[in-house]
Amino acid sequence: MPTVLLTLAFIVIGAKLAGALVEWLGQPAVLGELAVGILLGNLALFGGPDLHGVRQGEAFTVLAELGAILLLFQVGLESTLREMLAVGGRAFLVACVGVITPMLLGFGVGELMRPGESWMLHAFLGAMLSATSVGITARVLGDLGAVKTKAARIILGAAVIDDVLGLVILAVVSGVIATAATGSSLSVLAVAVICLKAVAFLAGAVLIGGFLSPRLFLGARVVKAQGVIQALSLSFCFALSYLAVWAGLAPIVGAFAAGLVLEEVHFKEQVERGERPLHESLVPLTGLLVPVFFVRMGMLVNIPSFLRVEILGFALLLTAAAILGKWACAVAAPRGVSGLTIGLGMMPRGEVGLIFAAIGAQLMLGGRAVVDTGTYAAAVFMVVSTTLATPPALAWAIRRAARAVPDP
Amino acid sequence: MPTVLLTLAFIVIGAKLAGALVEWLGQPAVLGELAVGILLGNLALFGGPDLHGVRQGEAFTVLAELGAILLLFQVGLESTLREMLAVGGRAFLVACVGVITPMLLGFGVGELMRPGESWMLHAFLGAMLSATSVGITARVLGDLGAVKTKAARIILGAAVIDDVLGLVILAVVSGVIATAATGSSLSVLAVAVICLKAVAFLAGAVLIGGFLSPRLFLGARVVKAQGVIQALSLSFCFALSYLAVWAGLAPIVGAFAAGLVLEEVHFKEQVERGERPLHESLVPLTGLLVPVFFVRMGMLVNIPSFLRVEILGFALLLTAAAILGKWACAVAAPRGVSGLTIGLGMMPRGEVGLIFAAIGAQLMLGGRAVVDTGTYAAAVFMVVSTTLATPPALAWAIRRAARAVPDP
Repeated sequence: MPTVLLTLAFIVIGAKLAGALVEWLGQPAVLGELAVGILLGNLALFGGPDLHGVRQGEAFTVLAELGAILLLFQVGLESTLREMLAVGGRAFLVACVGVITPMLLGFGVGELMRPGESWMLHAFLGAMLSATSVGITARVLGDLGAVKTKAARIILGAAVIDDVLGLVILAVVSGVIATAATGSSLSVLAVAVICLKAVAFLAGAVLIGGFLSPRLFLGARVVKAQGVIQALSLSFCFALSYLAVWAGLAPIVGAFAAGLVLEEVHFKEQVERGERPLHESLVPLTGLLVPVFFVRMGMLVNIPSFLRVEILGFALLLTAAAILGKWACAVAAPRGVSGLTIGLGMMPRGEVGLIFAAIGAQLMLGGRAVVDTGTYAAAVFMVVSTTLATPPALAWAIRRAARAVPDP
Repeated sequence: MPTVLLTLAFIVIGAKLAGALVEWLGQPAVLGELAVGILLGNLALFGGPDLHGVRQGEAFTVLAELGAILLLFQVGLESTLREMLAVGGRAFLVACVGVITPMLLGFGVGELMRPGESWMLHAFLGAMLSATSVGITARVLGDLGAVKTKAARIILGAAVIDDVLGLVILAVVSGVIATAATGSSLSVLAVAVICLKAVAFLAGAVLIGGFLSPRLFLGARVVKAQGVIQALSLSFCFALSYLAVWAGLAPIVGAFAAGLVLEEVHFKEQVERGERPLHESLVPLTGLLVPVFFVRMGMLVNIPSFLRVEILGFALLLTAAAILGKWACAVAAPRGVSGLTIGLGMMPRGEVGLIFAAIGAQLMLGGRAVVDTGTYAAAVFMVVSTTLATPPALAWAIRRAARAVPDP
């Protein structure tokens, strides 16, 4: 507990000041929070304490996760389900391009840099590049007030679909490798169950959530106490996040779905009674917890293990494949929407890429780990580069698009 | 993480609905939250899951502690340091009565129910009854909008002093017992260091905090970003909570001190710029986290271990000593302030009493634990009774006093 208090005391004000500084330099505030995290995570280089244990602490992790959940809930609230479904087909197209191209490019990098290894290892490398981590993008869109643009909706929708596709790909590739290693047959049933759960969650959130939530909130009006709607909304967000985890998806996908399903009209009566609207009462919560998430993400960057000369070539090629693979999403942008914004918005990998890499480190093929320490270090390089490059690049693209075609 | 999400989903809405229900019955909302906790903690009695592990989980504990810290910070913000110092002498008197009387009564209960045991064991029993847990009282005062009354200030000030006195008493009594058990001499120096740290913290918070914080907040005005003052205030609260723990005090004492030291005048410029005042932006945070604290406190009540017939006599006597000992504080109430309110406000023990009991269970004297399992169960009974009796009794006393003498 004392450690958590001290960490929070530093993070809350440090992140705010760093955010204000980078905003003054024309960058999104999130970049400052990542920088604070990198600094805290590498204090040992300057003779300071090693905070790796703090980063891994359960309480700190949960606070950071709650920050990400509340952020995506807040972003979800800014769109309606109808608006998202209107761009659904396009988002699906973007997600497919953003999964297939990085897989192919990653496979190619594997063939080039790890010749003679099994094609399955190369496929895993490709799969590792396919996941999008939407936290950074959502935050940049929020920092720049661009959440309500059509480009933002396409990116956010594609990121949700991407999470489902990534889950399925991981299951299939890992299944194929495990099958080859043990000689057992690939369990098509197991993969089908994974797909079904994910699709059931999304369909359930959309159909039942959209049907049930207006009735639920109508019923809650009977309780006249202050803050009932806020409490119900938060519970709804946490419950859907939990269900997303149950379905094998990221909790933030559930939080985003919760935000989409809830609409301001449910809270009209409360606002008329003088209560604060929901999105406003979320601000103090996200103000405290969201920086914890991004500072913690920054602490991921362990500078010595990240700058390893012997893997630099491999790391750079992998990163190029990761970036170009997601930029390809630009071709799927509809007329009048900035392809550049979409390509850059899909770019960050965040911790999702590392989860893939960690699973690969556990998988054995021909007596060796599918993801060896060199590949793991290259994956970390790829994750860190795409994450840190996104805020400035995406901010530039959004401002450029706003100047060219004022997006409603 | 999934468990935390599911727990939060239940707690947030369950606590709000139960709070609304008991408020409709004329009781403070906190009683409903405690009831939800008791229900959740005893689901196993009705064939449900045993949530004891959830209660002890690090993340859940930290979220609850943060709730208590933010609550006391919020309560501290409603008073100024000057106002607290004005009732300082009286609060000291109340604290002394509220420590000495329960100690004497507890000692007497020991002599009566555990005859033939060492006087040191009886003294420990007395010490166990001396601590006040101010969370419940602070919350009831808040629920009833009575934080700014003179009675509230005296109770809150006395509770802070009580925490220091309790710390010293625990150190002395444990030191005497350890000395008797091992034959070493009582380390007067160690006890002196404990006292000095606690007093240094309080003096430091008052003097340096009062001198430094206006300058700090004046400096922060240079940073024009939204929410800087909120971030700085929260950091200040977490930092003082951390320092309180360093000084051996409860973190909530630090949070309360932080609230006292900060004054609305520091935020005047921000409010004029259209930002929300600090106490308003705390509401969503406390709305989420404070119920977690009280629900968790309710989960403490394990009904089977709590209702043990064989210790019922001892438990009832101990509880009577605990209650009467704190009611005695009423005699120290100044003219025009309800002694009943002060006596009842000092009554709850919360987890502080259990921390004492747990330390006693570790202390050995003559080959036996100072607090055996029977005594521990009686202590739990005492803590639960005083905690649950406080909200309705205190609410009644506050309303009664408001009718008799309208307190400004």
